[in-house]
Amino acid sequence: MSESKVKSYCNSFPVTFTKAKDEILIDDNGKKYIDFFAGAGALSYGHNNDELKKDLLDYIKKDYITHGLDLQTPAKQEFIKIFHKNILEPRNLDYLMQFTSPSGTNANEAAMKLARKYTKRKTIFSFTGNFHGMSTGSLSITGNSYYREGIPMSSSDVVFMPFEKGFMDELDSIKYIENILSNPSSGVDIPAAMIIETIQAEGGVNIASSKWLQQIRRLCDQYNILLICDEVQVGCGRTGSFFSFEESEITPDIITMSKSISGYGLPMSIVLLKPHLDCWTSGQHNGTYRGNQHAFVTEKKALELRDRVNLDEIVRHKSELAMNYLISELKEFDLIKIRGKGLIIGVDIGQIDKNLAKKISIICFKKGLVIECAGKFNEVLKILPSLLISEKLLLDGLKIIVRAIKDTL
Amino acid sequence: MSESKVKSYCNSFPVTFTKAKDEILIDDNGKKYIDFFAGAGALSYGHNNDELKKDLLDYIKKDYITHGLDLQTPAKQEFIKIFHKNILEPRNLDYLMQFTSPSGTNANEAAMKLARKYTKRKTIFSFTGNFHGMSTGSLSITGNSYYREGIPMSSSDVVFMPFEKGFMDELDSIKYIENILSNPSSGVDIPAAMIIETIQAEGGVNIASSKWLQQIRRLCDQYNILLICDEVQVGCGRTGSFFSFEESEITPDIITMSKSISGYGLPMSIVLLKPHLDCWTSGQHNGTYRGNQHAFVTEKKALELRDRVNLDEIVRHKSELAMNYLISELKEFDLIKIRGKGLIIGVDIGQIDKNLAKKISIICFKKGLVIECAGKFNEVLKILPSLLISEKLLLDGLKIIVRAIKDTL
Amino acid sequence: MSESKVKSYCNSFPVTFTKAKDEILIDDNGKKYIDFFAGAGALSYGHNNDELKKDLLDYIKKDYITHGLDLQTPAKQEFIKIFHKNILEPRNLDYLMQFTSPSGTNANEAAMKLARKYTKRKTIFSFTGNFHGMSTGSLSITGNSYYREGIPMSSSDVVFMPFEKGFMDELDSIKYIENILSNPSSGVDIPAAMIIETIQAEGGVNIASSKWLQQIRRLCDQYNILLICDEVQVGCGRTGSFFSFEESEITPDIITMSKSISGYGLPMSIVLLKPHLDCWTSGQHNGTYRGNQHAFVTEKKALELRDRVNLDEIVRHKSELAMNYLISELKEFDLIKIRGKGLIIGVDIGQIDKNLAKKISIICFKKGLVIECAGKFNEVLKILPSLLISEKLLLDGLKIIVRAIKDTL
Amino acid sequence: MSESKVKSYCNSFPVTFTKAKDEILIDDNGKKYIDFFAGAGALSYGHNNDELKKDLLDYIKKDYITHGLDLQTPAKQEFIKIFHKNILEPRNLDYLMQFTSPSGTNANEAAMKLARKYTKRKTIFSFTGNFHGMSTGSLSITGNSYYREGIPMSSSDVVFMPFEKGFMDELDSIKYIENILSNPSSGVDIPAAMIIETIQAEGGVNIASSKWLQQIRRLCDQYNILLICDEVQVGCGRTGSFFSFEESEITPDIITMSKSISGYGLPMSIVLLKPHLDCWTSGQHNGTYRGNQHAFVTEKKALELRDRVNLDEIVRHKSELAMNYLISELKEFDLIKIRGKGLIIGVDIGQIDKNLAKKISIICFKKGLVIECAGKFNEVLKILPSLLISEKLLLDGLKIIVRAIKDTL
Repeated sequence: MSESKVKSYCNSFPVTFTKAKDEILIDDNGKKYIDFFAGAGALSYGHNNDELKKDLLDYIKKDYITHGLDLQTPAKQEFIKIFHKNILEPRNLDYLMQFTSPSGTNANEAAMKLARKYTKRKTIFSFTGNFHGMSTGSLSITGNSYYREGIPMSSSDVVFMPFEKGFMDELDSIKYIENILSNPSSGVDIPAAMIIETIQAEGGVNIASSKWLQQIRRLCDQYNILLICDEVQVGCGRTGSFFSFEESEITPDIITMSKSISGYGLPMSIVLLKPHLDCWTSGQHNGTYRGNQHAFVTEKKALELRDRVNLDEIVRHKSELAMNYLISELKEFDLIKIRGKGLIIGVDIGQIDKNLAKKISIICFKKGLVIECAGKFNEVLKILPSLLISEKLLLDGLKIIVRAIKDTL
Repeated sequence: MSESKVKSYCNSFPVTFTKAKDEILIDDNGKKYIDFFAGAGALSYGHNNDELKKDLLDYIKKDYITHGLDLQTPAKQEFIKIFHKNILEPRNLDYLMQFTSPSGTNANEAAMKLARKYTKRKTIFSFTGNFHGMSTGSLSITGNSYYREGIPMSSSDVVFMPFEKGFMDELDSIKYIENILSNPSSGVDIPAAMIIETIQAEGGVNIASSKWLQQIRRLCDQYNILLICDEVQVGCGRTGSFFSFEESEITPDIITMSKSISGYGLPMSIVLLKPHLDCWTSGQHNGTYRGNQHAFVTEKKALELRDRVNLDEIVRHKSELAMNYLISELKEFDLIKIRGKGLIIGVDIGQIDKNLAKKISIICFKKGLVIECAGKFNEVLKILPSLLISEKLLLDGLKIIVRAIKDTL
Repeated sequence: MSESKVKSYCNSFPVTFTKAKDEILIDDNGKKYIDFFAGAGALSYGHNNDELKKDLLDYIKKDYITHGLDLQTPAKQEFIKIFHKNILEPRNLDYLMQFTSPSGTNANEAAMKLARKYTKRKTIFSFTGNFHGMSTGSLSITGNSYYREGIPMSSSDVVFMPFEKGFMDELDSIKYIENILSNPSSGVDIPAAMIIETIQAEGGVNIASSKWLQQIRRLCDQYNILLICDEVQVGCGRTGSFFSFEESEITPDIITMSKSISGYGLPMSIVLLKPHLDCWTSGQHNGTYRGNQHAFVTEKKALELRDRVNLDEIVRHKSELAMNYLISELKEFDLIKIRGKGLIIGVDIGQIDKNLAKKISIICFKKGLVIECAGKFNEVLKILPSLLISEKLLLDGLKIIVRAIKDTL
Repeated sequence: MSESKVKSYCNSFPVTFTKAKDEILIDDNGKKYIDFFAGAGALSYGHNNDELKKDLLDYIKKDYITHGLDLQTPAKQEFIKIFHKNILEPRNLDYLMQFTSPSGTNANEAAMKLARKYTKRKTIFSFTGNFHGMSTGSLSITGNSYYREGIPMSSSDVVFMPFEKGFMDELDSIKYIENILSNPSSGVDIPAAMIIETIQAEGGVNIASSKWLQQIRRLCDQYNILLICDEVQVGCGRTGSFFSFEESEITPDIITMSKSISGYGLPMSIVLLKPHLDCWTSGQHNGTYRGNQHAFVTEKKALELRDRVNLDEIVRHKSELAMNYLISELKEFDLIKIRGKGLIIGVDIGQIDKNLAKKISIICFKKGLVIECAGKFNEVLKILPSLLISEKLLLDGLKIIVRAIKDTL
């Protein structure tokens, strides 16, 4: 009653949740739900993972620093160290780290500012279907008009280019962008940066091909444009590799990370930037909650855990399992498109009826599955479970979806 | 080595902090520091307050929801309930709550969007010296040019008005603003909102008078302009009342809160909005970390605690103590200006030398006091301790400051 | 010596011109030049046409009103009357007239403002390759980056769409635009207006097909978008009909005219607007020189003249003559593209060498022909003679071009 | 009937004017009107001045170039020569000339672009009450909100400063601006340029003092800001010197001129720029009607004439006459303010009733006097006769005004 109408997920899932463990949510009636939503992608290790929790409790108990802005603390130093050792070095990647206010949108704001400062250009290229957040800068590069509706505000210096998928699939979008850049009468200035999602999660699980990503990287190189990769939703192992762009072998100039970066759902964001781009002056992008110490602690353990359990392999295996199951079970429905990589999988029912996915998600919820919709019309069921989900629960969840689809059609 | 040059506080305080308790920070050599910085105002209850910590540990242990977006949880519900009961109702205030991404900047972004959407106007009035954050919208209403330097970005639809203090003190700023609004040839459109800080903390502890705030409120009423009060740094009891505007008896249309709202330094932000303004559509301003459950838990306890210990009275008492001490000890320095309200106190040394405050803060740090500077030239020592600091430690800290000033001048 | 470096045509044609008559320019050495430039399209009736001149001299002699702002004068009233009778009524067109500052750019500024005011939307769609003028609004809808180079200014609320020709010819530009409009995640808002040139003159004589124009009209209708047609360079009979869009049978909502509207090269501009769009308040778009009385006088005679001589038929005949001649004479050069409609004809040499056209125009000038280049790289010779040019001089001019091309290649 | 509602002066003066000579307008009933409006200041030499007319007729008859863009012609060369010899050299001024599209607004657009390009800064300071024109850039620096009303368009990168007069007269506006510039937290960036009118004509005949102009010049020097002086309405001798700023002895960096520059009411505009500012590239600000040949011819004669008749002295004499008459005749009305310089004189009745001036102008028109109102509420009668008006007609006109005021009050 006393919350603003802006609230949303509690409308989709109108119960009170009391507890949660791993891939299970429990409501105040004790009813259990398989969680295919995972905190909008913030819970790649599931809810309240015991190993991470243990370290967090220990840290809090011992009165280690809770709030430290960007002061030096052992928790920060250890996180940086393990991130370098376990993530960057094995991939031959060299980035500086910037901790921003703990939200993906703020990391994207910092990335845009840095790109503009470094290149001295003002335009940013975003892509149809992209989602980057709600603050003014991030909103200006977010495709969905819903978020701007009725708000008289300017969004200057951003130009939207056609994404490879989900916009006009027969278009050679690379050639289109190339023409825009090479034609001095295109009306569009060479941008400071292009910002991409390798997989548009909110946009409807639209997956860019490796070839397309490589061509984008080539265009950026050719015109001295920085490539920003927003890894907020599909980074941190979601796609079967730590960074979602690894398969394509491209190297972004700037990477933004958030959501699952703490492994425990704690607020945290990072910008990774190539060292030569570091034209920030001290404190030029600040924020009280940058560098969440609790998140450093859990993420350190999460990074150890991912190596120990061989997370990427597990994810790819479960991905195959899930994709095969869905394709086989839904093969009778020509108009249903199944797209996925790692453990983000979209079931696109839009060609049948763009309002149907929403209805099916409601049925699923009644059957004990939490799942959200994505896409420009919310026409895609977005499967986004914990990466550590058991095969059994994964299949249980998929069965609920398949059943709901079959019953509805 | 692997952090971006954007880092700042770790430059001012170049040690590694390991532990912290209440008003004390401890570095890795075991050296103790009195904390007059308090996480840039995020630690009004000090570090790792035992009562709050107990509830937090208990919550985590029991696998209650950690990450819940805006789902309904008992933690959220209880927080809302106590906030209404202990804060809003006794003050006869009626606001809806909106949880945003957990940073002050994001709360301000939401407030600006809401004001523009509700009024259908695009201009926002900010004030010289204001600070609201780093994302594009909040940056556009932040006075200090340092944060925009070298970044080619547009900041449209914002007009800066003269603040009562710290700009041109002999100016009748209300009359100036009134002329701008009433003169159809002023070049400035009637704004959607004015956003104020009752005390500009980053701006140099510039304290608006109650009369000025009332006149601003009157102008807003006259022209149907919304009044947004940014309580991020000086709300939550810092000034000797929960909201910093209470003494002035004005009622803002929108209030943004963050920093000390959790009482424990955990990331959290709230927008309070008058019910009739609630023109948001569901999810129109979203964010993965909105509604931090851990913060709900500690804030609930913090709100109980403030009533139990009669926090406002304590703060006002210690404020008097500190102000008297400083005025008495520094009375020989005519050019030093001491300004304060509650436990935010500025010692302005700018009229002597605008670079001096920074030097003194360095001396203080060596003597075991963490204190930061504020103001357009960083010319003001900003005293911002835990509200629960003991009188003894408060005076110990002040002594270090007084000594450092006397030794330097 | 005392003119700014901004001067341009006097660099291309570095002589002093003293006299001019019809399609001939004469320099201070008495050398005659065939004029295929025609005041950048402002001299469709040639230089100092005797019939128009007679009326102008008579008007001036008799001390009729020279400068009248938008006061009522017989000259204005008679112009409006004949424009209705001879132009609008026979074509079943119904427009109100607005006289703006006498330049095409100002007419376009007025059109943009009107469209935004009427629709309450802020975005304007322009097209790659478009040219609309140099003032801030018109510049924001002009494709060529040369005009913005090095000038730090914002150009918000404009989105460039792909023109049918000259950008990426194999692209289905209508489908692209349709996708942008229908996809709520395209990042682009439904615009107030689309502004088109049926033939991009400065853009390199890129001629939109009737089918494309009809599809653009259909899209505008479907989304309640206003269609603005910039007739500044190709209106007033240039293409073989008074309005260049007549063949396509579309009806724009707003038409901007200038250049040849006076028939004598006198500064004048008109906006034609559908009556229901007239949401202007009195004087909301003003200007000291709007409604040039001298121009009214010559244009009245010009409109009489065009009917008497059957101008459209003449133009189409000479167009055919010229096109046939060029196609036949240049048929050996596969890579030369000849495009034209009425008496605007482009000889595109860009596929051979994009710097060649400029060189050829210099040779032509030496041989006694004034001709300019157009296109994104100035790669197109733009033939733009007086509509009343004699067939002989037309062919003489074309021969000079053909000779220069053959000698060069 | 077929004109847009945007028309304005024909509403104020609802007759058809047929002829005009010097300071007299004649309607179609033969009724004569003294003209205190002078084409909104474009007719400083009156209507159809015989000397100028003779040269114009001769020029047209002889088929000299009518439309020449920026080609070299004897008319242009002679104009430039005499402008240097008669205007710039005697005043020790050194400027390059740029001819823009023939309207004041376009000259201002060019000036803003040049200032931004030269300084690499984007902000422009304008002043409350300023008027610069209707195209997007000029509109953004125009104070009066009437012109923006209901039009959803952005006007970024402009900040309005308080003008010395007509806004808040007791304010030390120089100190205000100085504070804005020197305070790094003012929220306002150092601008590329300040654009001033020495006398705000449309703004209500607000006359800046020489001291104020000098202080503005000093501030510009101090911060490397360009000073643009818009001489469109009060230049060309209107104030008793060719440039209105001469008395103050300041030298602007850029000057924009239009209106009376041709002496005959023909469309023409000039930008004068200090030679070192000339960073234009060829054609970067173009326009079909730049460099109006007819205007060059009449202006040449006008410049000769002004020296021959000693125009400045005449103007100052008649100014004194008019001011004395008005002050003496209206001395009984304390609340009527009379402001003037040269032959621009404002009778400000706003303190009595802000709607009264409009009523009085209607009465005057009935009595045979054409006069317009100015000011933010149209509360000022603006006396703007031909500079060559006879003393008798000047007094006749003033008598009509005085009578109308006395009858009304």
